[in-house]
Amino acid sequence: MAKELSTREENYSQWYNDLVVKADLAEQSAVRGCMVIKPYGYAIWEYMHDALDKMFKDTGHVNAYFPLFIPKSFFSREADHVEGFAKECAVVTHHRLMNSPDGKGVVVDPSAKLEEELIVRPTSETIIWDTYRNWIKSYRDLPILCNQWANVVRWEMRTRLFLRTAEFLWQEGHTAHATSEEALVEARKMLDVYAEFAEKWLAIPVYKGVKSANERFAGAIETFCIEAMMQDGKALQAGTSHFLGQNFAKAFDVKYLNKENKLDYVWATSWGVSTRLMGALIMAHSDDDGLVLPPKIAPIQVVIVPIYKNDDEFKLTVDKANELKDKLSKLGIRVKVDDRDTQKPGFKFHEWELKGVPVRVVIGPRDVQNGTIEIARRDTMTKESANYADAETIISQLMTTIQDNLFKKALDYRNAHTVDVNTWDEFKAQIEAGGFVHAFWDGTTETELKIKEETKATLRFIPLEPKEEEGVDVYSGKPAKMRVYFAKAY
Amino acid sequence: MAKELSTREENYSQWYNDLVVKADLAEQSAVRGCMVIKPYGYAIWEYMHDALDKMFKDTGHVNAYFPLFIPKSFFSREADHVEGFAKECAVVTHHRLMNSPDGKGVVVDPSAKLEEELIVRPTSETIIWDTYRNWIKSYRDLPILCNQWANVVRWEMRTRLFLRTAEFLWQEGHTAHATSEEALVEARKMLDVYAEFAEKWLAIPVYKGVKSANERFAGAIETFCIEAMMQDGKALQAGTSHFLGQNFAKAFDVKYLNKENKLDYVWATSWGVSTRLMGALIMAHSDDDGLVLPPKIAPIQVVIVPIYKNDDEFKLTVDKANELKDKLSKLGIRVKVDDRDTQKPGFKFHEWELKGVPVRVVIGPRDVQNGTIEIARRDTMTKESANYADAETIISQLMTTIQDNLFKKALDYRNAHTVDVNTWDEFKAQIEAGGFVHAFWDGTTETELKIKEETKATLRFIPLEPKEEEGVDVYSGKPAKMRVYFAKAY
Repeated sequence: MAKELSTREENYSQWYNDLVVKADLAEQSAVRGCMVIKPYGYAIWEYMHDALDKMFKDTGHVNAYFPLFIPKSFFSREADHVEGFAKECAVVTHHRLMNSPDGKGVVVDPSAKLEEELIVRPTSETIIWDTYRNWIKSYRDLPILCNQWANVVRWEMRTRLFLRTAEFLWQEGHTAHATSEEALVEARKMLDVYAEFAEKWLAIPVYKGVKSANERFAGAIETFCIEAMMQDGKALQAGTSHFLGQNFAKAFDVKYLNKENKLDYVWATSWGVSTRLMGALIMAHSDDDGLVLPPKIAPIQVVIVPIYKNDDEFKLTVDKANELKDKLSKLGIRVKVDDRDTQKPGFKFHEWELKGVPVRVVIGPRDVQNGTIEIARRDTMTKESANYADAETIISQLMTTIQDNLFKKALDYRNAHTVDVNTWDEFKAQIEAGGFVHAFWDGTTETELKIKEETKATLRFIPLEPKEEEGVDVYSGKPAKMRVYFAKAY
Repeated sequence: MAKELSTREENYSQWYNDLVVKADLAEQSAVRGCMVIKPYGYAIWEYMHDALDKMFKDTGHVNAYFPLFIPKSFFSREADHVEGFAKECAVVTHHRLMNSPDGKGVVVDPSAKLEEELIVRPTSETIIWDTYRNWIKSYRDLPILCNQWANVVRWEMRTRLFLRTAEFLWQEGHTAHATSEEALVEARKMLDVYAEFAEKWLAIPVYKGVKSANERFAGAIETFCIEAMMQDGKALQAGTSHFLGQNFAKAFDVKYLNKENKLDYVWATSWGVSTRLMGALIMAHSDDDGLVLPPKIAPIQVVIVPIYKNDDEFKLTVDKANELKDKLSKLGIRVKVDDRDTQKPGFKFHEWELKGVPVRVVIGPRDVQNGTIEIARRDTMTKESANYADAETIISQLMTTIQDNLFKKALDYRNAHTVDVNTWDEFKAQIEAGGFVHAFWDGTTETELKIKEETKATLRFIPLEPKEEEGVDVYSGKPAKMRVYFAKAY
C-alpha cells in the first residue's frame, strides 16, 4: 500500500492527494468539489470537534443552530460582505421537481420558482445578525456567545480534499457585545483558543497575527489569524477570528439600550476553523510512509499485531493482545487488536503506518513465553523490545513523548523556515526556497499586491505586537515601520 | 412568563407553539419553514446526540460525512424513491450571483447555470449508495455500518417548529450487508436502539411496529417504526428503520463477490431520528406551566435559587448555594446557581419551571442557619424541606425518581389511550376521543385509505409479532387476520 504513495520529494502535491485517499481519510464524490469524509477521517474530525467544543464551552460559549439558507437580499446589506461571499455560491431557485414530459427522469418544475432566491450559507453572519435583532434589546441581553457547528458551501473553482472544497464542515462563533473593547477581547481570546488547540492537540506550531486590509474577512474591521508552516515551505491559514465592529449590527439594525438608557449599535465578532485543519494536520507531520498522527487526536493510538503460525499460537498471542488492550483501555488509551487472519503481519504493519497509528505493539509466541513485547513508534519509525510488565508505563509515556516530539519537530522546521530578509533579491530567493519571509513592508496594499504579482507570496500576517523598527520596504524602497511575514500559501 | 402560555385544554396546538418559543427552544427564522434552534433547545439536542451516538458506536457503527448536494439524476434511478422525495425539495440551479444591472443588490448570474441541477439532500440513500459502489468489491468489505449526523431539507408546505420544518437536523444510518438476513437483523437492532433511547433517555414509552405498504419509506421493502402517544391523543412517529432489500444496490449497481466467488447485489438498511424528537419530548411530558424535562437530557438538572434581602444575606445564601453546587457537580449532576440580582425569586421560579428544570433548591438565610434547604420537583410541582446534610443523597435519588416517574406517567397515559374496538362506530368515536385504536384490518391499502379519508386516522403500525386472530375488518367487514394500530398522528 504505502509503496503506492508518491514521495514528498518527487511530487508533494500528489503525495498529499495520494495520502488522503489511501489512508482512507476522504475522497471525491459525484458532486463537483464536494468530498466524502470517510470514517477514519471523520473520526479524527470528531476528536478535533470534541476538543474544540470543550474549549468553547469552558470559555462561556453555547451552541445553537441557524438556517442553511440565506435570503439573497441579506447579502446586499453589508457592502464588503457581498463582494466577498455572495458571488461564488450555490443558489436555490426552485422548490419542486416534476416528471419530465418526455418520460425520462425528473426536471425542475418552472411553476415552483422561489420569489426570492436562497443562498446556501457560505458563512452565517447575515442570517445570525438578522436573528440577533430580536434577541437583543438591552445591555442585559449582552454578551451573546453563540457557536454553530455546520456545513457551509463556497463555489470554489479549484478544489482539493480538505484544503479547499465546495462544501466543508466548520464551526462559526458569532458573538455580540455592548462595547468595542469587549468584542476585541473576545476576538483575541478565541485566537488564543485556536492557537492552543493547534499546538496542544494537533502539535502544529502557529504564529498569531493580524491580517492586512487586503486579506481581511469581508465585512471585518480586523481579522486575526493563526498561520502554520507545511513541509513544502508553504503557509496555511489554520483559523481566523474577526472583530466586526458594528458593521453587521448596522446592516441588520441591531441596537441595544445601554446602561445610560441610550440606543447604540451592538459590537460583533466571528471566528471559525474548518475541516481545512485536517489538511494542515496531514501536511504538518506525515511522511513518505503515510500519515503521522499526534496521539491526542489519533482514533487508534495503539495497534497490537499478534504474530502466529498456527491455531495454538493464534490463541496464545491474540489472548495476550486482548489482555494488553484491556489494561491500556483502562488508562484511557484507544487500542485496536488487529487479529485479522486474512492478512500477513507485513501488510498490517504497512497499513497502520499508512494510517498514522502512533504506536505499534507486536506480540509473538516467543514474546508470550518470555514476557516481552516489541514496541514501534510511528513518528521515529524506531522499535525496541520491552518487558510486558512495563507495557502500560512505557506506552502511556509514549503518548506524551510522541505528541511532544511531533510538536518540537514541526516547531524546529517552522523556525528554520522563518527568515529575515533585507533586499528584494533575498526576498525572491527566499520565497522560492519556501518558508515565512520576515521583511520590512511600507504598509500599503499597493506594495502588497505587487509583491504577490511578482512572487506569488502573500502577506500572511502582521505581528500582534510588532517591534517598532525603522526600515525600508523590501520591494518599494519606501520607509517602513515594521517587518511582516510573507509566504506562498495554501 | 408562564402565565402567557396557552393551556393545553384551551388550545393544545397554541400551547405547543407558545412553549417552544417561550422556553427558548426554537423560533422561526427569516427563511420560510426553517427554524433557529436556540441555545437551550440545542443543548437538549446535544444530549440526545451524545446518547444516541454512543449507542450507535457501542453497536459497531462509525460516523462519516457525505455531500449536502445530490445530482438530480440520482433520484430517478429508484422509482419509488423519486416519487417520495425528489418532488418537494430545494433545487440549486446556479453557482454565481452578480451585481444587479440596476445597481440594486445582486441577481443570479444567468451564465452560471449548472449543467445538472443539484438537490439539497432530503435523505442520502442515493449519494451514499453511489459512494458505496467504490467501497464494496467483496464480502470482505461487508458489512459497512456508517452513520451520518447532518442537516436535510424537505420543502414542506405546512411547517411547525421541530415537528415539521423545511430544514431539520438528524442522523441517518446507512448499512450494507452480504445477506438479506443480516440486513434485517440490523434494521431490527436499530429499531431496538431507538426504542431503548426513547424510553430510557426521553422517558417516552413507544410501540415498536412495522409500517403498512402505504406508509413505507420510499424505496424500502419494510419500514419499522417506533410510535409514541402525545398528550392530545395523537400519535407521533419517533424513529424509523428501513430494510431496503437490494433496491439501492440495483439502482447504483453495487455488487460484491460472495464467498462462492459469485457477484451479487448488496443488501441495505437505513435508519434515522431527527430534531422531531424534540417535539415528541416536549409534548410527552410538559404541562400548562411549561416544559417538563427528564433529568437525563435536561441541560440544567438542578437550579439553586438563593433568597436574600441584603448584601450580607446575599453572600451567605449564594456561598451556600455554590457550596452545594460543587458537591452536586462532583456527583455528575448539572447545576446552575441563579444569583441574578436583577430578578425576584418568584420570577426565577416561574422561569425555571417554564424551562423544565427537574429540581429546584431554595436556600434562604434561615435555611443556612438551620442547616436546611427546600427542594421542589418540577414533575409533581411538590416541595419539601430537607436537611442540607442530606441534599446529595436526596437529589441524586430524585434524578432517578423523576426520570422513572415521567416514564411511568407517560406509560399509564399511553396504555389508557390504547383501546380495542370492534365496530366502525366504536372506531370513529375512539379516534375522535384520541389514542391508539387497536382494530381488525383486512390488510388492504384500499381500506386503509378509506379509513384515513373518513376519520383522518392513519394506520400507525402493524405489531412486530401480531397475535394470530380471526376477525372482521372494522371498516370493510371483510375477513381480517390481525389487529393493527390506528391513530390520528403528527
